[in-house]
Amino acid sequence: MNQEKKNLIVGQSGGPTAVINSSLYGVVSEGLRQDRRIGEVYGMVNGIEGFLQGNTLNFREALPGTMLEGLKTTPGAYLGSCRYKLPEDLEDPVYPRLFEKFEEMNIGYFFYIGGNDSMDTVSKLSRYAEKIGSDIRVIGEPKTIDNDLVLTDHTPGFGSAARYVASTVREIVLDANVYEKKSVTIVEIMGRHAGWLTAASVLARKTAGDNPLLIYLPETAFDQEVFLEKIEACFSKNPNVIVCVSEGIKDKDGTFICEYDNSVGTDSFGHKMLAGCGKYLENLVRNRLGVKARSVELNVSQRCSAAMISETDQKEAVIAGEFGVRAALKGETGKMVSYVRTSDLPYAMVPGLEDVNEICNKEKTVPLSWITEDGSDISDEFLVYALPLIQGSVKLPLGTDGLPAFVSRK
Amino acid sequence: MNQEKKNLIVGQSGGPTAVINSSLYGVVSEGLRQDRRIGEVYGMVNGIEGFLQGNTLNFREALPGTMLEGLKTTPGAYLGSCRYKLPEDLEDPVYPRLFEKFEEMNIGYFFYIGGNDSMDTVSKLSRYAEKIGSDIRVIGEPKTIDNDLVLTDHTPGFGSAARYVASTVREIVLDANVYEKKSVTIVEIMGRHAGWLTAASVLARKTAGDNPLLIYLPETAFDQEVFLEKIEACFSKNPNVIVCVSEGIKDKDGTFICEYDNSVGTDSFGHKMLAGCGKYLENLVRNRLGVKARSVELNVSQRCSAAMISETDQKEAVIAGEFGVRAALKGETGKMVSYVRTSDLPYAMVPGLEDVNEICNKEKTVPLSWITEDGSDISDEFLVYALPLIQGSVKLPLGTDGLPAFVSRK
Repeated sequence: MNQEKKNLIVGQSGGPTAVINSSLYGVVSEGLRQDRRIGEVYGMVNGIEGFLQGNTLNFREALPGTMLEGLKTTPGAYLGSCRYKLPEDLEDPVYPRLFEKFEEMNIGYFFYIGGNDSMDTVSKLSRYAEKIGSDIRVIGEPKTIDNDLVLTDHTPGFGSAARYVASTVREIVLDANVYEKKSVTIVEIMGRHAGWLTAASVLARKTAGDNPLLIYLPETAFDQEVFLEKIEACFSKNPNVIVCVSEGIKDKDGTFICEYDNSVGTDSFGHKMLAGCGKYLENLVRNRLGVKARSVELNVSQRCSAAMISETDQKEAVIAGEFGVRAALKGETGKMVSYVRTSDLPYAMVPGLEDVNEICNKEKTVPLSWITEDGSDISDEFLVYALPLIQGSVKLPLGTDGLPAFVSRK
Repeated sequence: MNQEKKNLIVGQSGGPTAVINSSLYGVVSEGLRQDRRIGEVYGMVNGIEGFLQGNTLNFREALPGTMLEGLKTTPGAYLGSCRYKLPEDLEDPVYPRLFEKFEEMNIGYFFYIGGNDSMDTVSKLSRYAEKIGSDIRVIGEPKTIDNDLVLTDHTPGFGSAARYVASTVREIVLDANVYEKKSVTIVEIMGRHAGWLTAASVLARKTAGDNPLLIYLPETAFDQEVFLEKIEACFSKNPNVIVCVSEGIKDKDGTFICEYDNSVGTDSFGHKMLAGCGKYLENLVRNRLGVKARSVELNVSQRCSAAMISETDQKEAVIAGEFGVRAALKGETGKMVSYVRTSDLPYAMVPGLEDVNEICNKEKTVPLSWITEDGSDISDEFLVYALPLIQGSVKLPLGTDGLPAFVSRK
């Protein structure tokens, strides 16, 4: 190890996306390219939690040469992930433990790829570094299919998830249209508090008035009786009604619709664990309207479908990764890489930097002006916003078995 | 209309698949090519049920020129479908009504694309034709993701569904692997009585001993206690255990596992309507083993994912469609087009013809010799059988919105 040059370490945290490894590719490839200024390029296995246990790898050994390229078409988190929240109290002994380990590995550049909770880690580490006068540079790389980070036009991972949702809903419409008999299909889409991904289902619509006929986000109150009336009204347009709902839709009292049916728990960050509003609404429609009803939970494929990677999303994730490394070399720290949209038509984006303290633990929801007044549809402004983000398909390398070939740690 | 030449009519029936429109393409394109012997090429909209209501289209008008090509990358059933069972009694007045309509439209060639129940329609129509001395030729084109038709090596639709299952399970494995904490993911796959599609999940395994670690088909009895013991044993190999189960798994008494949890109904053919063995097993694992558990129902994407169309499946569906038309012109009737495998390595298939009366209302299940003795895994014979069927990916035409462009009737 060259002791004059500082080393780089990068980790992934939170739920995976289809392009979280493209962000990783950006950081690692730029780190390796900057070999006059950066020594080794390490990965922490299973995020900050694995790092504390000494679980790291060296990218020159783990993915030598062109193997690194495989990251760009591999969903999931190559480095593994964690859901570990650093203590609020910067006096906690975990901080000196972490920085001793950074010292041991001669780390000068720390990158963390993740969402809200991961930016909380970036914030705390950068504040602790400042407190102790460490010159380690701590940079956050955004990642979330939920698209709910503030101070960025959108987030890596959203475009591919939106492309998956739009194309899958379009296929579900084809599937539903084969029979003439009245039917209702409820499609449940990820999103606890922000309805970005559910809003993307509007992209499945070929022309105005097509399915999906109803789209409900958590941003507006859901009324079960009004919902049933709207379904009845939809039958005059189409016997096969497709409804897209966020998993986190709530009524006017703030009760999650899924809570009418299911027991709920909380995850380690105190988030409510939701399941089943689609199933609940399926039963409601069948029992109250007496029509054929089914529900489809799009589930984890929303965040790990390789076939539906948006080329735009993939390229931007790589750009954000590279940009973060160059920013750290310029001395930036405590920042998250953001996307700044400079033009809608034609779409143009440049990367930027934002103070991570202004980002962590905040959520950006869909503007109410982008939701129709009755809360059951999405406006054209959203189309202008989202359409560029789902453009382009990516050719997946196939293995000897004819299936997409992914890279993995072992 | 040229009264010297007889016309062709084709319909689709039962659940859609990713390549049912490729079969349609084969029939229609060959019908149009044979224009010296065949007059018009009609489609019945919503199968035999729609035909009875006079709902037909002419392919020369509906999909002129190269638009017909779009069928090959469009999932769902372009013509619409039905689940209409013709009466057992050939004296029923519906038969003369149907044949009068055939006469009116000068139909000489009748093609029906579907599974077991559709072959029942082909059987009845061909027997009635014989009974009344009609020279109309009635040919069945196989279609089912379930792969459960007898007297054919496999069925169109299975290869693409198997490719979807294998690649999606491989992605779910990536998604599950990101955390270190013990977890169990139950993947519920379509298949009431035959486990072919669930068996295809073994193709997701990169090397022996990889996930999915447990695979359960309806062909063998499922024991809940033994299942829990096996999961515990799996944790020594991998903290993240993926289990693939057919929707129709049963215990030794013949009780569907989903019935331990859910109410059931029957569809119009008297099939039990199943839902939720994945959800049931998820709760069983969580409650009994105290580990993180989730379930993923692959749902309708298994039969309508365009991105995972197997090129082999698509090409074979077209071949079967074309072959059926040529067979009808040679005078064949009351037959289903079959696939005859002439070689495993290299894989080679030729189309054949089988007596439809020997096919309808029968089901081909996975040979017990292809399932391991304890009923929790699939043997290598299945790999040899299934691997050729999922080969090749298909480039989807994209529309101006950047999403896959599908053809539709309006």
